[in-house]
Amino acid sequence: MIWRIDRLQTEMPPPSDPDPAGAAVVQELLGGKFGEMSTFMNYTFQSFNFRNRQGARPFYDLVANIAAEEFGHIELVSTAINTMLTGAGEKGNLPKPADLLNPQHFAAGGAGTLVQDSNGKPWNGDYVTSTGDLVEDLVHNFFLETGARNGKLKVYEMVDHPAARALTGYLLVRGGVHQVAYARAVENLTGADLSKLFPAPRIPTEKIPECRPHIERGEHTKLYRFSPSDYHELAAVWNGTHPETGDDLVVVDDPPEGFAPFDLPSQEGVFAPDYAPEEIAEIARKLRTAAGLSDEPTGVVANDTNGVMGKIKEAVS
Amino acid sequence: MIWRIDRLQTEMPPPSDPDPAGAAVVQELLGGKFGEMSTFMNYTFQSFNFRNRQGARPFYDLVANIAAEEFGHIELVSTAINTMLTGAGEKGNLPKPADLLNPQHFAAGGAGTLVQDSNGKPWNGDYVTSTGDLVEDLVHNFFLETGARNGKLKVYEMVDHPAARALTGYLLVRGGVHQVAYARAVENLTGADLSKLFPAPRIPTEKIPECRPHIERGEHTKLYRFSPSDYHELAAVWNGTHPETGDDLVVVDDPPEGFAPFDLPSQEGVFAPDYAPEEIAEIARKLRTAAGLSDEPTGVVANDTNGVMGKIKEAVS
Amino acid sequence: MIWRIDRLQTEMPPPSDPDPAGAAVVQELLGGKFGEMSTFMNYTFQSFNFRNRQGARPFYDLVANIAAEEFGHIELVSTAINTMLTGAGEKGNLPKPADLLNPQHFAAGGAGTLVQDSNGKPWNGDYVTSTGDLVEDLVHNFFLETGARNGKLKVYEMVDHPAARALTGYLLVRGGVHQVAYARAVENLTGADLSKLFPAPRIPTEKIPECRPHIERGEHTKLYRFSPSDYHELAAVWNGTHPETGDDLVVVDDPPEGFAPFDLPSQEGVFAPDYAPEEIAEIARKLRTAAGLSDEPTGVVANDTNGVMGKIKEAVS
Amino acid sequence: MIWRIDRLQTEMPPPSDPDPAGAAVVQELLGGKFGEMSTFMNYTFQSFNFRNRQGARPFYDLVANIAAEEFGHIELVSTAINTMLTGAGEKGNLPKPADLLNPQHFAAGGAGTLVQDSNGKPWNGDYVTSTGDLVEDLVHNFFLETGARNGKLKVYEMVDHPAARALTGYLLVRGGVHQVAYARAVENLTGADLSKLFPAPRIPTEKIPECRPHIERGEHTKLYRFSPSDYHELAAVWNGTHPETGDDLVVVDDPPEGFAPFDLPSQEGVFAPDYAPEEIAEIARKLRTAAGLSDEPTGVVANDTNGVMGKIKEAVS
Amino acid sequence: MIWRIDRLQTEMPPPSDPDPAGAAVVQELLGGKFGEMSTFMNYTFQSFNFRNRQGARPFYDLVANIAAEEFGHIELVSTAINTMLTGAGEKGNLPKPADLLNPQHFAAGGAGTLVQDSNGKPWNGDYVTSTGDLVEDLVHNFFLETGARNGKLKVYEMVDHPAARALTGYLLVRGGVHQVAYARAVENLTGADLSKLFPAPRIPTEKIPECRPHIERGEHTKLYRFSPSDYHELAAVWNGTHPETGDDLVVVDDPPEGFAPFDLPSQEGVFAPDYAPEEIAEIARKLRTAAGLSDEPTGVVANDTNGVMGKIKEAVS
Amino acid sequence: MIWRIDRLQTEMPPPSDPDPAGAAVVQELLGGKFGEMSTFMNYTFQSFNFRNRQGARPFYDLVANIAAEEFGHIELVSTAINTMLTGAGEKGNLPKPADLLNPQHFAAGGAGTLVQDSNGKPWNGDYVTSTGDLVEDLVHNFFLETGARNGKLKVYEMVDHPAARALTGYLLVRGGVHQVAYARAVENLTGADLSKLFPAPRIPTEKIPECRPHIERGEHTKLYRFSPSDYHELAAVWNGTHPETGDDLVVVDDPPEGFAPFDLPSQEGVFAPDYAPEEIAEIARKLRTAAGLSDEPTGVVANDTNGVMGKIKEAVS
Repeated sequence: MIWRIDRLQTEMPPPSDPDPAGAAVVQELLGGKFGEMSTFMNYTFQSFNFRNRQGARPFYDLVANIAAEEFGHIELVSTAINTMLTGAGEKGNLPKPADLLNPQHFAAGGAGTLVQDSNGKPWNGDYVTSTGDLVEDLVHNFFLETGARNGKLKVYEMVDHPAARALTGYLLVRGGVHQVAYARAVENLTGADLSKLFPAPRIPTEKIPECRPHIERGEHTKLYRFSPSDYHELAAVWNGTHPETGDDLVVVDDPPEGFAPFDLPSQEGVFAPDYAPEEIAEIARKLRTAAGLSDEPTGVVANDTNGVMGKIKEAVS
Repeated sequence: MIWRIDRLQTEMPPPSDPDPAGAAVVQELLGGKFGEMSTFMNYTFQSFNFRNRQGARPFYDLVANIAAEEFGHIELVSTAINTMLTGAGEKGNLPKPADLLNPQHFAAGGAGTLVQDSNGKPWNGDYVTSTGDLVEDLVHNFFLETGARNGKLKVYEMVDHPAARALTGYLLVRGGVHQVAYARAVENLTGADLSKLFPAPRIPTEKIPECRPHIERGEHTKLYRFSPSDYHELAAVWNGTHPETGDDLVVVDDPPEGFAPFDLPSQEGVFAPDYAPEEIAEIARKLRTAAGLSDEPTGVVANDTNGVMGKIKEAVS
Repeated sequence: MIWRIDRLQTEMPPPSDPDPAGAAVVQELLGGKFGEMSTFMNYTFQSFNFRNRQGARPFYDLVANIAAEEFGHIELVSTAINTMLTGAGEKGNLPKPADLLNPQHFAAGGAGTLVQDSNGKPWNGDYVTSTGDLVEDLVHNFFLETGARNGKLKVYEMVDHPAARALTGYLLVRGGVHQVAYARAVENLTGADLSKLFPAPRIPTEKIPECRPHIERGEHTKLYRFSPSDYHELAAVWNGTHPETGDDLVVVDDPPEGFAPFDLPSQEGVFAPDYAPEEIAEIARKLRTAAGLSDEPTGVVANDTNGVMGKIKEAVS
Repeated sequence: MIWRIDRLQTEMPPPSDPDPAGAAVVQELLGGKFGEMSTFMNYTFQSFNFRNRQGARPFYDLVANIAAEEFGHIELVSTAINTMLTGAGEKGNLPKPADLLNPQHFAAGGAGTLVQDSNGKPWNGDYVTSTGDLVEDLVHNFFLETGARNGKLKVYEMVDHPAARALTGYLLVRGGVHQVAYARAVENLTGADLSKLFPAPRIPTEKIPECRPHIERGEHTKLYRFSPSDYHELAAVWNGTHPETGDDLVVVDDPPEGFAPFDLPSQEGVFAPDYAPEEIAEIARKLRTAAGLSDEPTGVVANDTNGVMGKIKEAVS
Repeated sequence: MIWRIDRLQTEMPPPSDPDPAGAAVVQELLGGKFGEMSTFMNYTFQSFNFRNRQGARPFYDLVANIAAEEFGHIELVSTAINTMLTGAGEKGNLPKPADLLNPQHFAAGGAGTLVQDSNGKPWNGDYVTSTGDLVEDLVHNFFLETGARNGKLKVYEMVDHPAARALTGYLLVRGGVHQVAYARAVENLTGADLSKLFPAPRIPTEKIPECRPHIERGEHTKLYRFSPSDYHELAAVWNGTHPETGDDLVVVDDPPEGFAPFDLPSQEGVFAPDYAPEEIAEIARKLRTAAGLSDEPTGVVANDTNGVMGKIKEAVS
Repeated sequence: MIWRIDRLQTEMPPPSDPDPAGAAVVQELLGGKFGEMSTFMNYTFQSFNFRNRQGARPFYDLVANIAAEEFGHIELVSTAINTMLTGAGEKGNLPKPADLLNPQHFAAGGAGTLVQDSNGKPWNGDYVTSTGDLVEDLVHNFFLETGARNGKLKVYEMVDHPAARALTGYLLVRGGVHQVAYARAVENLTGADLSKLFPAPRIPTEKIPECRPHIERGEHTKLYRFSPSDYHELAAVWNGTHPETGDDLVVVDDPPEGFAPFDLPSQEGVFAPDYAPEEIAEIARKLRTAAGLSDEPTGVVANDTNGVMGKIKEAVS
């Protein structure tokens, strides 16, 4: 089971100019064959289906733990798309159909992410490979991360909206960690040295400006343990040096702290969250009061005027 | 983002007689239109796409928090299916094709769950409705839970394997909580009283023997907060009395403790996790030692001989 | 637009022994590529999309009118499936999973028809061909009917349940009418004589016992006008002789009178129409009375004890 | 079975400037998850699958009768799309690919409607929910109409072509009738009062200029009986007052009279109905004469020069 | 089984201005219901599934042999698409999302063909009809070719890029051969004369400028035997005169010689074949040398500076 | 383009007892994600889309040439399925629905192969990965072959019909060749040594009795050049030793000679090739005579009484 933390794994920019066609392209990183729904769901179901976990514990821990990080990735891609759609759903100001790539962002959704790829095709369970054979599944995962890296690099080239660039910059670094992790796992089980395949595609990650700050903070070397209680055997696989930089690989025994998301504004032109959102706010306030909660909303968001620093740490401790 | 806890939300029985045709029917609760992938993903993407969260905070918290519980449900359904398939993948002893409903459990998977419904059709992103309109999405969710309850009741009738019954007994109670939660949310926003729709379908939950222990523990009245740090406004919506039993609805400020899963045995006939799993176990042991970890696997499983009580609590504290 | 008449185009037998596996095969005639959803929807959308109707009026009338008859065919196939599933959804008596071909008949539906083919794959809009080119669409329709005839003949061979046989016996004759109609239309437009292709497949229709009564009543020669007001130019295409029997083709200026359907009994094991249907009946009675309607249900069904002969004629006049 | 009337349920404008990108957006109302194919097919199959109809007659009549009206809605959406595509398929004048959203309107169809949503994804049978449980199916239908209303409002905002506006103006009013009807049915069966959910989404229908004429004619209060012979128990459910306006709900014992459609012109650039449609017209004339029919086409269309007033009434009487 | 010849069946132009939106439309001819994947796969599987081949040998030979030619057609369509995408994948110069119809050409592929139609929907096996009934399959094939001709004519009208025009000009002529072939086969088996259906659609092929050179070379009358060893009975079906031109139909006892393809240049912006393709070239050179092969690449391409005339003839002889 | 040779790449047994449920499982090897349609189409489209072929010639030749061999694999899987279905389509003797896994083998096909997987889901173009990035595509292909090997091993275990065993025995050996080939290509480009991954899954191929004869003939070491004219640079990649056996890898400069297929008998119960196939045979004979061809069928089949040895060699020479 999971606990949910209402933070993003990296800092995302506030909304700026809307870019609905660009947002449609970013959907590839969400619902494409090599998108984050695929990485999240592949590792999740592989971990559910894992037999003889105790016997293969370091590998189970690795797959199960990376699955947990991937939830944060579908969250980030959705955040980028929603940020790029912000402003395009304002009353009386919807984009012209001919300027769109994915009309369902507005005709079905409320200027919101769809569980689709960049062609508007829904993600489906066929994209999950869970053969049960450990070596095969790990090789698959290595390839899946390679395909994912390709997609991120291409979307990076195609879309220059700040939200898309913040997204791809971060995901390239963290996806790279998973790529290395699966390569290490395969090597440990078979002796096959996959390190020479890096970087794949062959563009050095540090050449990408949006990746550099993350590399400077060492994000490319860290495997976070995304659990308060489990997955203690990550270090049995995640060790040695990074194939691109030669830095030591390190297990971080806690998840990253995260960043508060921006509370994206209402888009009344597509009734999100309503045609007249202030009525909902009023109801919410009354309900809070009736329940003996604070008068003000307690959520932590980046664009909040209330001081909410450190809330998460307090809450956990 | 999420943290992952390697525990099940309810206790599941160990493997007994295999039942691959029954397992194929249980797939409906995983990948069917009204299965747990649908509940998990609907609430997850609705929470990602939620605009003006601060204004509508109690409702955001409700949807985001239930999404977190639903991850545990896809885990439970998968556990049931994998338990029912255990024994059917043994070397030289695979089921006859004519006795199967879903041959891919063996031809593609390793006696493992597929992201499909009971007809072998993959789950797809079209099953996610996220219109952005809060009232509409909540009404949708109420209906989705109603459809889910229907499916659980029918699978309960069709499949009597102990794992299927433990699953449906638990999910009927917890799904009922979500059904009530969305009904309450709709009522709070609009005044429409949906409580007279319960139970829907009209079979009193407490008449089902496998539901009764959960009801006796009050599981039908509790909304757990599945977060160490967030979703503090649940009580603004989750209050009043249960429409079936009249019991008071209560917010529990922690996730449930959970139960260790059984470590399901290898199925060498389908190479899960390998044709010769003992080799993997030997490698794992060496890797652990080399990394300075304990000689024995550290994972917590129900069929472990090591005493592991209380580990999770210690870990968190 | 349409008016709906609550009658079946042919007489269907009452429920007898349930045959859920057979019913799954009959689904091919509903939702298969060459099933009745395809014929209904192809002709319907071709008629919607028909340009320059006045210029090509006899052909428009033909396509639009056959579309109307096809609605009755999806109704008949559904009736056959539902009849075959009756008894298999009784409380405590559901079929064993291994004996099923399509578990969703029970796990998703209420012992009811699904919009799927015999492999459980949903019918989809890709099965509709509407190119706008009249000759091409008519050739397509001729081929579609040929494929449909093939399917009916094969399902006839595979399934011997009385409802399936009543269905295929009737549909083979009426589908044959449409096959001839499109052949005639193509001939009229191009001069190409398709009559030598009959029967296709090459099994003489009158050799099939369940077809014979319909042939004896001349059903193979009649094109009914399924409209009180339109489609007066059918006779411009539907004339000459039947390619199999040499009988004169005739336009009948009214739809067939139809037959009352059996009111299929509740299946409480799958909650259709409810776990306790008598409560619904009681509510219905009260609502009728409150609205000043008759105390007894006014519907016309084959297994009704009330005399309802001739109601339809009276109603129309 | 059905009879077909070659009239539209509302008056549609003649073709004006083509708008192929807008037409692609309108496809959402045809083949989207919440489009008219879904409403038509859900109610149709629910009526086919309805068990114990006599016991639940008012509800059966309601579902079966609304299904009949929905056929008219897929016809209207198709008419709007075809009207918007008219002019874009003229010889030598096809739109540039980069200006299109759905190239299959021209590459596959003849400037004609496809059975797809706004992303070009075919409608499929998975969009049909027919659980057999009456309360559940009615709640589903209420939600389906809510989703449909959302879609219509959004397409209204996105597309301002006169045909799109005439369409959405009418459908919003009539879809609202169905939304109320299912809410009333649920209330009658369970006591749950859904009337406070109206309007959903929360935009008062009468604020929409294109809706107002229909409301002024009372179209929001009328449930037409779409049958010459059946569905006499509508009044047992359709009574009381309209939740938005407070007007009395009334059953109209006849279908609406309807409006003749425009005969949309040939589009020779995509061979609809032919590269040289005048040849077809000549053949048609000869066939009519040979069959002893009138020299002129007998069809009733809005842009006909022949006086055809009142034909439908005469035909029926 | 097959042998592969690295030549195109017709001469294709070199890359010129990129036209990604046009390329997306041309995808209809690759992966559409009536595209070349459909013709290739229909005939291929019909030939695999053909029973009693010896008894029906001329028909088996016809279907199996045309299947072989169709491989060359999927190759040609792909070549056209790739040619049109060339230049659009250059570093730092990718097209703007809003100008695209199919973003996966770049986000998933390397400026390369996808197995999709013009709406970005993947080709699927449902497009294959193989009933086993010979007459039915042949009628199907005749219709399939008619639909394919329609698609080619429409894409011809919609897209004027030189590669698209070279493609459609050639395919219209060769597809016409297959249309005639299946018409002849049907006539031989049944006596039905389909020749009056030509041309379908009714645009005389020789009116299309890009078709004329092929007609002048008699390509519309030739059925090539695409096998060094088999399919000797083509002449039993392919004889008589061409229904459009009256020319004699002739069997050519060899495949066409073919044309060397252009070696399309790297598109480094989408990493095809690499971010830095010269490194690959260097590796290739070393591998060739190490294996004792020539220093220069031995492949035959249209834009090669090495004299490679006649290589194929030598190779075969 | 291709030439087609009417021979199978390995010898297949004649029909014996029908096994329709087993045949449904074998479909996984045809239309599954890791089936032969996927290998055939991945390599085919990667070769079509290959940019800068001259620069990367050895790799282009490898992919293009293996694509050609894969055509023979879809042919072999289809042959196995058709062989297993033979006898199950006899008149009056069709299998009972409850004994089937894939009813469309009979309800849609003529006891013939479908382009589907073992769950009856059509193969689709989404299974093709062609990123354009050479290293990535080769790693993908290595993984695809690994998945394919897994599937073959599992189908081997699940189905013991002689045709299935002959199929899997052969494909395991030849698929292994492709697995090695892609591993070698990756190593040559990157230096990564994948040889330690063999065998994957970890079952030594020579332990499988049906593989042994092929290994004894050295089939595991040979890469055939499937072209009379092209792909001369295979040896630049295919060299060194086999990772499982240590034998030298060799390029064979010709395709294998192949084996005549059995002419599978008519199945009149499903009208394949007709209800009365002798009529077709009589027509064929007349057509042959009229065309001046031999009186007897000229095709080469395994169960022919005519001496046809050596025909293929003569034909080629």
